[in-house]
Amino acid sequence: MSAPSEAPAGPSAGDALARLTAGDKAEVLVEALPYIRRFRGTTLVVKYGGNAMAGSAQLSLFAEDVVLLRSVGIDIVVVHGGGPQIGELMIRLGKVPEFVEGLRVTDADTLDIARMVLVGKVNRDIVGALNTHGAPAVGVSGEDAGLLVARQRSPELGFVGDIDQVRPAILSRLLREELVPVVATIGSDGAGQAYNINADTASGAIAEALGAEKLVYLTDVEGLRADVEDRASVISTLSVDALDAMIADGSVAGGMIPKAASCVQAVKGGVGHAHILDGRVPHALLLEVFTRSGVGTMVGTTVEG
Amino acid sequence: MSAPSEAPAGPSAGDALARLTAGDKAEVLVEALPYIRRFRGTTLVVKYGGNAMAGSAQLSLFAEDVVLLRSVGIDIVVVHGGGPQIGELMIRLGKVPEFVEGLRVTDADTLDIARMVLVGKVNRDIVGALNTHGAPAVGVSGEDAGLLVARQRSPELGFVGDIDQVRPAILSRLLREELVPVVATIGSDGAGQAYNINADTASGAIAEALGAEKLVYLTDVEGLRADVEDRASVISTLSVDALDAMIADGSVAGGMIPKAASCVQAVKGGVGHAHILDGRVPHALLLEVFTRSGVGTMVGTTVEG
Amino acid sequence: MSAPSEAPAGPSAGDALARLTAGDKAEVLVEALPYIRRFRGTTLVVKYGGNAMAGSAQLSLFAEDVVLLRSVGIDIVVVHGGGPQIGELMIRLGKVPEFVEGLRVTDADTLDIARMVLVGKVNRDIVGALNTHGAPAVGVSGEDAGLLVARQRSPELGFVGDIDQVRPAILSRLLREELVPVVATIGSDGAGQAYNINADTASGAIAEALGAEKLVYLTDVEGLRADVEDRASVISTLSVDALDAMIADGSVAGGMIPKAASCVQAVKGGVGHAHILDGRVPHALLLEVFTRSGVGTMVGTTVEG
Amino acid sequence: MSAPSEAPAGPSAGDALARLTAGDKAEVLVEALPYIRRFRGTTLVVKYGGNAMAGSAQLSLFAEDVVLLRSVGIDIVVVHGGGPQIGELMIRLGKVPEFVEGLRVTDADTLDIARMVLVGKVNRDIVGALNTHGAPAVGVSGEDAGLLVARQRSPELGFVGDIDQVRPAILSRLLREELVPVVATIGSDGAGQAYNINADTASGAIAEALGAEKLVYLTDVEGLRADVEDRASVISTLSVDALDAMIADGSVAGGMIPKAASCVQAVKGGVGHAHILDGRVPHALLLEVFTRSGVGTMVGTTVEG
Amino acid sequence: MSAPSEAPAGPSAGDALARLTAGDKAEVLVEALPYIRRFRGTTLVVKYGGNAMAGSAQLSLFAEDVVLLRSVGIDIVVVHGGGPQIGELMIRLGKVPEFVEGLRVTDADTLDIARMVLVGKVNRDIVGALNTHGAPAVGVSGEDAGLLVARQRSPELGFVGDIDQVRPAILSRLLREELVPVVATIGSDGAGQAYNINADTASGAIAEALGAEKLVYLTDVEGLRADVEDRASVISTLSVDALDAMIADGSVAGGMIPKAASCVQAVKGGVGHAHILDGRVPHALLLEVFTRSGVGTMVGTTVEG
Amino acid sequence: MSAPSEAPAGPSAGDALARLTAGDKAEVLVEALPYIRRFRGTTLVVKYGGNAMAGSAQLSLFAEDVVLLRSVGIDIVVVHGGGPQIGELMIRLGKVPEFVEGLRVTDADTLDIARMVLVGKVNRDIVGALNTHGAPAVGVSGEDAGLLVARQRSPELGFVGDIDQVRPAILSRLLREELVPVVATIGSDGAGQAYNINADTASGAIAEALGAEKLVYLTDVEGLRADVEDRASVISTLSVDALDAMIADGSVAGGMIPKAASCVQAVKGGVGHAHILDGRVPHALLLEVFTRSGVGTMVGTTVEG
Repeated sequence: MSAPSEAPAGPSAGDALARLTAGDKAEVLVEALPYIRRFRGTTLVVKYGGNAMAGSAQLSLFAEDVVLLRSVGIDIVVVHGGGPQIGELMIRLGKVPEFVEGLRVTDADTLDIARMVLVGKVNRDIVGALNTHGAPAVGVSGEDAGLLVARQRSPELGFVGDIDQVRPAILSRLLREELVPVVATIGSDGAGQAYNINADTASGAIAEALGAEKLVYLTDVEGLRADVEDRASVISTLSVDALDAMIADGSVAGGMIPKAASCVQAVKGGVGHAHILDGRVPHALLLEVFTRSGVGTMVGTTVEG
Repeated sequence: MSAPSEAPAGPSAGDALARLTAGDKAEVLVEALPYIRRFRGTTLVVKYGGNAMAGSAQLSLFAEDVVLLRSVGIDIVVVHGGGPQIGELMIRLGKVPEFVEGLRVTDADTLDIARMVLVGKVNRDIVGALNTHGAPAVGVSGEDAGLLVARQRSPELGFVGDIDQVRPAILSRLLREELVPVVATIGSDGAGQAYNINADTASGAIAEALGAEKLVYLTDVEGLRADVEDRASVISTLSVDALDAMIADGSVAGGMIPKAASCVQAVKGGVGHAHILDGRVPHALLLEVFTRSGVGTMVGTTVEG
Repeated sequence: MSAPSEAPAGPSAGDALARLTAGDKAEVLVEALPYIRRFRGTTLVVKYGGNAMAGSAQLSLFAEDVVLLRSVGIDIVVVHGGGPQIGELMIRLGKVPEFVEGLRVTDADTLDIARMVLVGKVNRDIVGALNTHGAPAVGVSGEDAGLLVARQRSPELGFVGDIDQVRPAILSRLLREELVPVVATIGSDGAGQAYNINADTASGAIAEALGAEKLVYLTDVEGLRADVEDRASVISTLSVDALDAMIADGSVAGGMIPKAASCVQAVKGGVGHAHILDGRVPHALLLEVFTRSGVGTMVGTTVEG
Repeated sequence: MSAPSEAPAGPSAGDALARLTAGDKAEVLVEALPYIRRFRGTTLVVKYGGNAMAGSAQLSLFAEDVVLLRSVGIDIVVVHGGGPQIGELMIRLGKVPEFVEGLRVTDADTLDIARMVLVGKVNRDIVGALNTHGAPAVGVSGEDAGLLVARQRSPELGFVGDIDQVRPAILSRLLREELVPVVATIGSDGAGQAYNINADTASGAIAEALGAEKLVYLTDVEGLRADVEDRASVISTLSVDALDAMIADGSVAGGMIPKAASCVQAVKGGVGHAHILDGRVPHALLLEVFTRSGVGTMVGTTVEG
Repeated sequence: MSAPSEAPAGPSAGDALARLTAGDKAEVLVEALPYIRRFRGTTLVVKYGGNAMAGSAQLSLFAEDVVLLRSVGIDIVVVHGGGPQIGELMIRLGKVPEFVEGLRVTDADTLDIARMVLVGKVNRDIVGALNTHGAPAVGVSGEDAGLLVARQRSPELGFVGDIDQVRPAILSRLLREELVPVVATIGSDGAGQAYNINADTASGAIAEALGAEKLVYLTDVEGLRADVEDRASVISTLSVDALDAMIADGSVAGGMIPKAASCVQAVKGGVGHAHILDGRVPHALLLEVFTRSGVGTMVGTTVEG
Repeated sequence: MSAPSEAPAGPSAGDALARLTAGDKAEVLVEALPYIRRFRGTTLVVKYGGNAMAGSAQLSLFAEDVVLLRSVGIDIVVVHGGGPQIGELMIRLGKVPEFVEGLRVTDADTLDIARMVLVGKVNRDIVGALNTHGAPAVGVSGEDAGLLVARQRSPELGFVGDIDQVRPAILSRLLREELVPVVATIGSDGAGQAYNINADTASGAIAEALGAEKLVYLTDVEGLRADVEDRASVISTLSVDALDAMIADGSVAGGMIPKAASCVQAVKGGVGHAHILDGRVPHALLLEVFTRSGVGTMVGTTVEG
């Protein structure tokens, strides 16, 4: 039929589509059907981030996915960090980023910078992309309406916070109004003091508090590897207990640790499945949710076919 | 991801899907997106019928399409006839079908037979297929709640009726309860006398009364032909005025006439688009609604790309 | 006051009414008052059937009763069988009905015939009568939306089914839209195979699943007899335990057995009262519900005055 | 069936009912059916009053009627006066009632007495009777929430008021909560000064403001007479224009004038029908609404059969 | 800003306000803020009565307070007695009031008088004042909808009743419609017999039945005194146990006993706080609810600052 | 009464309150009453900004006012700019702010800085203060959901935008969920390009689009002066036509021009009143809304007392 005026139609899309037969297309749509039926009305929390995601083309593809997921009745909450961009502005301002055990030492000025970058730049870019692609989005800071209640992790790190409690009421209100909340992970304590919070950890805690069906990490790796050195050893699906064991025995390392630990905690806390996806694959989110063949690692209470 | 337990997975599907890349699949889903957004909350009236549709495999594919369309928020009303099956039972009962100008002469006994076949057999088969595939359906006769108010066409045809009025309230009620109405086109007059109604005409009248976005005829031809003798002359899209002209100059013939005339009247009466599709193409309905390349003829107020 | 245009006014009615004084009329209305108040918002499942009910005059009186009961806020579900009509069509088609222990042996062709007759003829006649008298009705088959989930009773009987489960959601939806569901008792199993179900048994199971206030059998006998040979021994009211005992000691016989057994099971399963009424008495349903003097047998958890 | 525990069953009722056959009862119920269907959801304003209504037996019968009308979905508003009772208390208090052109001269003390009697005695008796019979009722004064906005008729009459405006919001609120408002016709002006208002006039104004279907005067005469001297000349039905003419030519006289004039104004203002009934006939209200043969005079826009 | 046209502006108000600075006003408003937030959506039952409250100026101030409390979302129920006014009318009618242990002996005639005075005079005056000041109010008798179910206290007292049960549904319905119920404390038994009920006791029972946040007695004393002879010994706040002890040891006397006992029972029955205020202080109700410094005695489960 | 635990109680407050009598407090509360009633359910758009507002003590007082206004049912939308803070960060980053006719020349880098400061710093500070004081707030950028649709003002100014259209749906959604939207005035065009928008102008446009009752500018001057040189010439109230004339004849100058022009346009566009208040007066907002004596200039369609 004729294209609706708002239809996106990149040239490459045309090429790919031309190659596919009506039968091919029908198969894909029919494959998606049971998933669409199954996930309608559920909530999906997606952590968007990592270097590979920074480009505006990537962001556009991601926004398209969010729009499609919402159009079939899935509630989406986007969570993001922004470490690289914070570092960049600090350097422009002549400040020297300092880290203790991988965590940024955050004085009052650095906190202000982090907040400006996360809320005023990274968050706005994501909100803007979603709005442009047709998903009315609202930027939310973890400070809003007590969403992320935090306390200081340790004095030497300054304003780096751990989550004490998640109060997801504001997210539920926005979802009820069919808006996509985009969360910058700044938290605050009862006295109004702000803290910078790890976005991987915050994503899991939010998913758990919302009773989400899915928690998805969009990363720039292919997924979780059985052998951290071997790209080909990506695990397609594993149980939460197996992942817990991998963390314990050191098979999970580096930046993957907070993601893996959050996956474990979220699934144990009632989230249906947690996913670590390769965000560099175009439409990774869509493919994971709507097709039988995944594009990363899925963690559930048990191993599933 | 893992298949939901309710996922249909025929062997042929597996073959086709295996051949497609993640990118292929993503393209199809992304192509479908603007249409899904556009048609959510609209109503589609589909006339299901014709010889090619009789098989239960065809019916299963059709039911899958209805389930998918509903799962993305499109309200579906199915309308059907059943001429061949009526004739078959008449012959078993030793009655000789008789026609005047292509219309079956319908005495009281024939009307009873028609009603038993349409409501008790054809309608049940469609309702059963929809229910089995996950779309809770309810059989409705045009006699229910004054849906199809009819009067006798001519005494010599007996209980063959023309539509005086459509009262779509019962369809709206069923749609509001998320049920798929399946309409057998028996009408009745104020005194409760039943009449057999042409299903093509009834489909158009129902679409108009509901203010449907789409009226779709699933037929066993490729679409409307510019040259009735030339299979390759199928028209992809044309305006309602052009179709009106083709009817007037005799370019449309035979069983296509009530369909074409109903398309014209429905679009003039406010229905968004009318479609004559090749129901033999698997998932024709799905492809027409969700892809840019149609599988038949589309009629709109103007010609569209 | 002046008669509303839709008022039915048969000549006999006029006669009877003329004989009654204003005081008489007032007494009847006042007697009905506490029952109207008591039954508003409750559900009544009525099995309509039997030879005496076949005439269209009987059907009109029954439809009037349904309209009146609904007009004071009682939800009505009508259930029906149609054995005699099935036999009749089988004979016209040259098939010889065969019975094993009173149950019709049902091959695939017989099932098709049964379905056509029940759904396409008997059901339509009842729906039509209700619609004509002002109660918007919808025909429902037990196959719809998994209403009657069945399995084969025994291979030698073919497609005769026992009820495994009742899923009354579709009835609740229709009642919510103020429609009267009229149920033809064809069931189906998970694979979509249809079975013919005993309508007496189905009525009781549906009443139980809906938590109905009343289950009413309209029959062509005066009620349950203490002595099966003695017409004058009709029992006005008895407890469910007493009826259970009568079934056990053989006092209940023949076609009354499935009705009596269903009454017992329904009342034990939470239905308020079960009634076996003489459907040949005009307006039997109305009189039973709205007057102090019943017209048949009432079964409750205890004997009531 | 067995009597519900709340069933009223006076001995005379038992007698009358015993005399009636099942067929008789059925006829009455069936006659009532179209009216029950027609009046569900409409509003009926009834002026209760007059000498014949004063007894508590009359009041009980009236309360039963209100309960029955409500039980079939008719919203009832009761309006009453109480002239005789006011006079009685004045005399006990040693005051001499004084009248100018049939209207009671009302000084401040008399107004207090009138208010105490109307609101504290007559209103309470009606409210109490309704509550006892099962219709939750609430006493309302025309002073409440600006229901009856009044101004002084003439200085010599003191606190006798004419209605300036009716604000029926409070009645709608009470009806929405399924309560029966019982209105004492004391009005007030913007400054909070109370006035005694003619109850016949107030009834009509309230019916008009509510867009009532019916306005009913329960009186102690048989109805409106063509010849004021001739009891047998009661008019069964007449048009609003005919009644207007009768008022103009003096055929309507005495206490009937405000009733007749209010009937005319109410029907012209949109009320469906106005009725002047003989309240001494037991269940007059019920019989008028639910039977074809009325018990008084009905006024409509045209003469109806 | 400019005054709204409906603004009350007595001359004394102008004087007082002129003396206050903007800062003063802001402080008062800011002090009130947390209380406004805290009490929104709660229910306050206030017993209005006593000699000092009889004047219409007092009533106006009270009505203003009710309007303000409602305007910030507090549900108000007003309860009143009217002993002095009953006595007055009895004397005018030549009856001699007779008391046994402080309770009025109430024969049938006296009950009628009491009802007329309470419902028809005192209740109307309060309802009228509330309506005039902008709080739509409805007069309710304890007889309405079974609000106060009573039984005779003792034969020698005649129609003096004790409360058996409170059915607050009618109050909830009125509050839901944003109306202020004003309750005259006449109760009735199942047979419809009315009884005069002590208003202090009824207030407490109603507060308990509604699960009110506050029960307030507006009296003409400064509050509860530690030493009944010493005006300066007013207790600002005490626990329910302490009050219970004071009643037991006789420290509470006379007309204060039913108030104090009702405070104890209400707080033990779940009411948040009970208050005995000096109703002679203008806007006592307002000051108690919205300022930190109270104007009487507050009773809670424990002593609070 | 006892203070709720959440009550703010600064020492100065205690002092001021101690000085006031109960009568004083009552007068203030009573004065506020008609305004509370009048403004419940209306919308107030407040532009927060200017140098005097920058301190966190000022912000706390402002947040208290917002909480109080909301607690009595007024919907609040806060709009803010942040010129000084943008300039400050630019300087820290070594950029030289450049102005053309008072407007900041905004290149892509400056736009990024402006957005970070407005959305990530100023907006967060206001949102944080509101949340801390008990008003759940959500930061919104004019880019969200098409709130502020903008186009470039002139090429030489770069990314400085004029408002083409306001789509207030997102604000309505947030207000419906009882959240306080805090708007940073970045707009965007259809292609997603962001622009910096004058906050004074945006406030007026938003108030108009929402049909607000009030538009309030909190500034650091006493109000609008008749004589720009004379502090004592502050105008208390004037008509929109008079203000229009003052703009035309140059009596309004400098930074007051966009405020004054927006006041004129908003009031002409349907906003009830526009106010220019002295934000340095503690609780200026509260005093203006709830007391008869204002603290600045009010603009209405006509001059009001």
